[in-house]
Amino acid sequence: MDLLNEKFSKLGVDNAPGQESKQVENEIVFLGEIIHGKAVDFSHGDVDAFEPIPNAMDEFIEGVKRGGAQAYTEYKGKGTIREELAKKFSTFTGIEFSAEEQFIITPGTQGALFLALGSMIGRGDKVAIVEPDYFANRKIATFFDAKIVPVALNYFESDMQAGLDLKQLEDAFKAGAKVFLFSNPNNPTGVIYSPAEILSIASLAKKYDVSVIADQLYSRQIFDGRKYTHLCAQDIKPDNLITIMGPSKTESLSGYRLGVAFGSPKVIDRMEKLQGIVSLRAGGYSQAVLKVWFNEPNGWMKDRIVAHQSIRDDLLELLRSVKGVKAKTTEGGSYLFTEIPELTVKIEEFIKILKLQANVIVTPGTEFGPQFIHSFRINFSQDHQAAVDAIKRIIQLIERYRK
Amino acid sequence: MDLLNEKFSKLGVDNAPGQESKQVENEIVFLGEIIHGKAVDFSHGDVDAFEPIPNAMDEFIEGVKRGGAQAYTEYKGKGTIREELAKKFSTFTGIEFSAEEQFIITPGTQGALFLALGSMIGRGDKVAIVEPDYFANRKIATFFDAKIVPVALNYFESDMQAGLDLKQLEDAFKAGAKVFLFSNPNNPTGVIYSPAEILSIASLAKKYDVSVIADQLYSRQIFDGRKYTHLCAQDIKPDNLITIMGPSKTESLSGYRLGVAFGSPKVIDRMEKLQGIVSLRAGGYSQAVLKVWFNEPNGWMKDRIVAHQSIRDDLLELLRSVKGVKAKTTEGGSYLFTEIPELTVKIEEFIKILKLQANVIVTPGTEFGPQFIHSFRINFSQDHQAAVDAIKRIIQLIERYRK
Repeated sequence: MDLLNEKFSKLGVDNAPGQESKQVENEIVFLGEIIHGKAVDFSHGDVDAFEPIPNAMDEFIEGVKRGGAQAYTEYKGKGTIREELAKKFSTFTGIEFSAEEQFIITPGTQGALFLALGSMIGRGDKVAIVEPDYFANRKIATFFDAKIVPVALNYFESDMQAGLDLKQLEDAFKAGAKVFLFSNPNNPTGVIYSPAEILSIASLAKKYDVSVIADQLYSRQIFDGRKYTHLCAQDIKPDNLITIMGPSKTESLSGYRLGVAFGSPKVIDRMEKLQGIVSLRAGGYSQAVLKVWFNEPNGWMKDRIVAHQSIRDDLLELLRSVKGVKAKTTEGGSYLFTEIPELTVKIEEFIKILKLQANVIVTPGTEFGPQFIHSFRINFSQDHQAAVDAIKRIIQLIERYRK
Repeated sequence: MDLLNEKFSKLGVDNAPGQESKQVENEIVFLGEIIHGKAVDFSHGDVDAFEPIPNAMDEFIEGVKRGGAQAYTEYKGKGTIREELAKKFSTFTGIEFSAEEQFIITPGTQGALFLALGSMIGRGDKVAIVEPDYFANRKIATFFDAKIVPVALNYFESDMQAGLDLKQLEDAFKAGAKVFLFSNPNNPTGVIYSPAEILSIASLAKKYDVSVIADQLYSRQIFDGRKYTHLCAQDIKPDNLITIMGPSKTESLSGYRLGVAFGSPKVIDRMEKLQGIVSLRAGGYSQAVLKVWFNEPNGWMKDRIVAHQSIRDDLLELLRSVKGVKAKTTEGGSYLFTEIPELTVKIEEFIKILKLQANVIVTPGTEFGPQFIHSFRINFSQDHQAAVDAIKRIIQLIERYRK
């Protein structure tokens, strides 16, 4: 087992979002008193503040009542549900998908990511990964013994684009990267890729025969009327392309563990085989809940986006009033990636201080790339007032621990 | 991607239980007419015939109502639920387990198996696997580039024991096997391992420092008052030992996708890390359903076992009346592994014939080991009369295609 020790040491979850109960407070010198206030867990959205799509549970109950026909679906998901989804995603993206050959239902988008990467990369393969980007991307690549080639996202310097370093991307492709993996809107910064950036990614991947995974988890929650560009709808695109989505975030259905992946039949076929040994299928009854997705009541999505944009604006105003704090305006999704001034403690320690002295949980920037030692991520899908109050407490502690 | 082609070609799911809708009927010469009768899918249990534990859905609904606290659990599962489970399994196995360090909730036992193997084996490691045994065992080992060392189970020659070839087992360990993986009761034969066999496995694994995974999925459904022996409760046992169970079979909760694994803290810790990138967690709301497990109404389990034993007896009587058919008496679980005489068609073709001419789905023996070309597995957790009728149709077709 010792050969695996190093690999698993890189898969640490103690700072992963939602895992903060595992942290132990060792040898931090705390300054000042506790600042009392309502607990806010910014590591993920609060499904009590933003509730699941109405009728989600009713569809689950209907699923249970259908019995065996719903409990035991094909590994890639129940056919009738895939057919409905394929239609919804054809409308959403503007391009047709075959429910039979190009679609799989997975246990969450995490499941989809693992299956997609597991179907594309082997030991020693190079994988181009954006920094910063979703923390599990690098961990999955590590688990499969792949080599990570980072590609910078200059999100602060960008205007009306995500800021992907296209030169670095092409260099990574030239150097033999097999796979390019990116989230759009970007997690953690919330920037969205411009039409020109998507076109460049698509044509470079086609040119160098690179497989692409586009994690579009938050692509329904776009602010300020910005344009969102689907890579899968481009005329020129890579031969192997998988798009991932799920109803866990904007739609607050995380508790049902649902995700989908759609794209190249060859990869979908592999993902189904892999799902057959990883978890068999997304929970059968949960799959029934997908009926409510993209089928929300009139105005429900619009209201949700407006409410999140309003929280974003209030938090940004507070954060930008602090000397040395930088935050890019979130363009899509519920994340804010905040850069803070130098403190007397490390970012991992500051995260523990926030938890113990301010009753606030945030995710350290280092989860998204080793260089982000002065940043943290918050998910602002929270009770509006509680989020504002929590940011005020964070700001107090930034001042208290400022170098 | 081409380097992965061979690996994925070995992960075929077309003959896997529940995937039969993927089969295409090519070039089989069908003899005679269709034998009409109620469709029976013997590839898995019928949760309409044997319904889930009462109140399972109510607990799910309570989980949904708890909101975020139930939707976002620790990766290894909600603490309070793990604590309840650890107590239940301490009682069940006769040995104490720590809910915090020795327990993980997974998306089905399939999820537990994948995580356990993924935490124990690296590329090129040898894994000792019983033949016949659960089909996914070999596929998971293949996916992780492990080398499979088969160990024979002489289930027909055995009496009051499973028939494991202990000489072969020790040879496999001597040859450097890192992991031994077995199901008890055995899937597909339904034999259970004797106290002496379990003692031998435990002490050999300890002696040769082999990690062990005991898949005890069906260990609550034991027939004829037979004694069941828990490997984890032995005095001498391997340092790395993981026991897997789940409520998907006897308890008919498959639609909720739940499993558990318990045992060595070091392995459980790795499994949690791996779960963090594979699927994050078992569905949060589903975890609430685990409250009803090992907490069934008085007499519910006993009735279920009696009903299954009765179906077993009727099917065995029918099968044994046929010349050339051999079937071991199921000692635990709902599987019957039936050996049939030589036919004019291959077993994979006969499986398709059964589906198309008799409206019956069974699983070919070759899913459980390449040598089982004259066997098929059925799960007899079905409507009693429908199962009897379906076996009669199978027998008619055995006669029709007999060489």
